[in-house]
Amino acid sequence: MSAAVSALAFDVFGTVVDWRTSISREATSFFADIGRTDIDPAAFADAWRGLYQPAMEECRSGRRPFVRLDILNRETLDTLLDRHDVSMGEAKRADFARAWRRLDPWPDAVEGLTRLKRRYPIVTLSNGNIALMLEMARRGGLPWDAILGAEITQAYKPDPRAYLGTAAALDIAPASLCLVAAHHSDLAAARACGLAAAYVDRPLEYGGRAAPDRHLRQDWDYETKSLVDLAERLGC
Amino acid sequence: MSAAVSALAFDVFGTVVDWRTSISREATSFFADIGRTDIDPAAFADAWRGLYQPAMEECRSGRRPFVRLDILNRETLDTLLDRHDVSMGEAKRADFARAWRRLDPWPDAVEGLTRLKRRYPIVTLSNGNIALMLEMARRGGLPWDAILGAEITQAYKPDPRAYLGTAAALDIAPASLCLVAAHHSDLAAARACGLAAAYVDRPLEYGGRAAPDRHLRQDWDYETKSLVDLAERLGC
Repeated sequence: MSAAVSALAFDVFGTVVDWRTSISREATSFFADIGRTDIDPAAFADAWRGLYQPAMEECRSGRRPFVRLDILNRETLDTLLDRHDVSMGEAKRADFARAWRRLDPWPDAVEGLTRLKRRYPIVTLSNGNIALMLEMARRGGLPWDAILGAEITQAYKPDPRAYLGTAAALDIAPASLCLVAAHHSDLAAARACGLAAAYVDRPLEYGGRAAPDRHLRQDWDYETKSLVDLAERLGC
Repeated sequence: MSAAVSALAFDVFGTVVDWRTSISREATSFFADIGRTDIDPAAFADAWRGLYQPAMEECRSGRRPFVRLDILNRETLDTLLDRHDVSMGEAKRADFARAWRRLDPWPDAVEGLTRLKRRYPIVTLSNGNIALMLEMARRGGLPWDAILGAEITQAYKPDPRAYLGTAAALDIAPASLCLVAAHHSDLAAARACGLAAAYVDRPLEYGGRAAPDRHLRQDWDYETKSLVDLAERLGC
């Protein structure tokens, strides 16, 4: 790590937590409750994740003011439930939409973050909103120093304001902040803003299929297999 | 505590940390370095704190856009150093201004917060900016779940937006959030916004002198002697 780096910012969905397994588990449970075992939960998780970027793009493009990810998750859930002709009451829908607050950490995440935190401030630089990140952190034991990213900057990655605003909130130069992420697209946008970039390989994020952004791979400042591996490389 | 309360938000300066002793210690050191032992450090701390509300009032009144507390602390430091005809270079001034990031917790604070955190999300609802709160928390071991308050709401207490915006970021109703503070003025403003209010008595905040807002005392939802006392009362 460059001597200039003084804080670590983390992508969360896919990098720190395993959204696909967790959303599949939640979908299994919600669909079982209403007798809709015909819907494949992993395919549902993938389809829900598939609506994530288009929903944020409405805000990034300026066609819609910034709204929190919890709200986008609820809207995309409603779209998918309609698509499957699912009948589900309001309270259950609201709870299902918050499944994104209940994602399990990858097995190395808590140990890796705990070790990294000894030396570096560790903050979220996620598109998840504050309440979502907070509930997820308390449930999974993620020891963030602060929850930054989209909501405090009112901008969704890869909008440069999300990266630059997070560095500004930390009162450090962009080059002093390192983004840790499993996604080349995210790291590329961070690097374009002047941040350092640490890649964490998550081959199971898409259930073993290739990542959609693999063509954006670059030589990153660090290339690691896990957050524990990153901690080792940084001497934490 | 009302069953409706689901999160605790904390005033920090005076409630969680002892600004007067810490700023006096810092002032002693900075003035000794330049041979200005004629300046009384405790009086300097009181004078610096005295410029805090007028500086924020410029932003609250709309005469000036919101700027972070770090910036106000630097400006009020410059004012005071001029008043004492102190000659001090830029790097030392910048470091001195950040003395507000290096305030020590009251002796009960870390244990109290750690216990309260087991049951409730604990967040800052301070006028301190994110970088200031983060450095203070890492230095003192304050285990916040999130750093909310002035910077994320772009409003200084007692502006209602600081309280209401913090509840909104947590995605809870104002009545579900309890402000914990040593200041009646802060609690009164929080109550006016619908928050619950827990008072923590800090008789040494002003070096043993009476608090300036003692005439604003009300019957608060909780009245406690320390954060450990609050944890006991809440069964944490």
